[in-house]
Amino acid sequence: MHIITISREFGSGGRELGKRLADALGFDYYDREIITAIAAAKGLDERYVSHTLEHHGWQNIPLNFRSSFTGFPPPSSIQTDLLLAQKQVIEEIAKAGKDCVIVGRNADVLLKDYNPFNLFVCAQMETRVRRCMERASESEDLSQKELEKRIRRMDKIRAQTRQLLTASPWGQAHTYDLVINTTTWDIKTLTPAVAQFAQLWFRRNQL
Amino acid sequence: MHIITISREFGSGGRELGKRLADALGFDYYDREIITAIAAAKGLDERYVSHTLEHHGWQNIPLNFRSSFTGFPPPSSIQTDLLLAQKQVIEEIAKAGKDCVIVGRNADVLLKDYNPFNLFVCAQMETRVRRCMERASESEDLSQKELEKRIRRMDKIRAQTRQLLTASPWGQAHTYDLVINTTTWDIKTLTPAVAQFAQLWFRRNQL
Repeated sequence: MHIITISREFGSGGRELGKRLADALGFDYYDREIITAIAAAKGLDERYVSHTLEHHGWQNIPLNFRSSFTGFPPPSSIQTDLLLAQKQVIEEIAKAGKDCVIVGRNADVLLKDYNPFNLFVCAQMETRVRRCMERASESEDLSQKELEKRIRRMDKIRAQTRQLLTASPWGQAHTYDLVINTTTWDIKTLTPAVAQFAQLWFRRNQL
Repeated sequence: MHIITISREFGSGGRELGKRLADALGFDYYDREIITAIAAAKGLDERYVSHTLEHHGWQNIPLNFRSSFTGFPPPSSIQTDLLLAQKQVIEEIAKAGKDCVIVGRNADVLLKDYNPFNLFVCAQMETRVRRCMERASESEDLSQKELEKRIRRMDKIRAQTRQLLTASPWGQAHTYDLVINTTTWDIKTLTPAVAQFAQLWFRRNQL
């Protein structure tokens, strides 16, 4: 079984890359599907699950703690419960034994015993703002400055969630197998390059 | 013309990857050749040129200055002279217009107008120590601890040289197009994956 995990900066195109990679390689794809599974298991609304997992209240705490809970307010019991449910869903996906791409949710760390191919996707801020503008609905009429602020906030949440849940830093090269800067790429064009790399990664121990 | 630049952590296999990539793609390869060219132009001994460029005396200064000369002792006139000669040699390589791989020496920044494909190669410390042990001559009988110390020192020199000469940080994902963690790869097996990625990179604007 082959697992690709994708961690990504907000607006870097990581999710689109994950979806296209799954299509190109014939792998299953998990992203929002994980939220759906948690919501179903807990009998909760998907939006509530998603919001609770992302807006955990840690994002206002300075990011200078190392691999420890020190200084963080403890998550509420519903947050802990949902985080454990998320862990369980991700482990069940792996146990099912089918090739898959999992986007976000620290799957690289949770599934490290399965030896996944771990990608981190980043891009320069201007590119990320442009991508967010392109995909925004018309009702979301944010200025460039507001978008930048939202992007930085989402990055911060992801970094802090990772720091709280794992001992492995977010977005640092040694933590992943491959870090892809999408700044000058169109994601569709990039996909075969990453797919070929992934195929060699999974074959490398037999070469 | 296509240029691949490789920045790398000491012992990460970046140089071997560069050589193999050049062979696989039919590109010229520049590494020690740059030192040879500087030595020839200046009528100096190669070992002297190499030693002066690497042991510039900045490595004992704390790494907390940002993109500025502040706090650094000015390089001696011979160091400045050799750094300028190195810049000139690298620019001449690019002007010659042939496809090439250039290892180290901040070529990614010096040649940014040529839109090179910029790689950073890293690996976990244990892997780097093992690689250094494998390639060490019998006369170099360093312990694991001594090797780790040397590796950290070389990384520090590279980071500080980059910081002194460019405004672009060393080893940070956004600075490069692709960051490759070679920890679990054999470099020979890794080469075709990177070569294919590079080929798509150079073709991407025509797709």
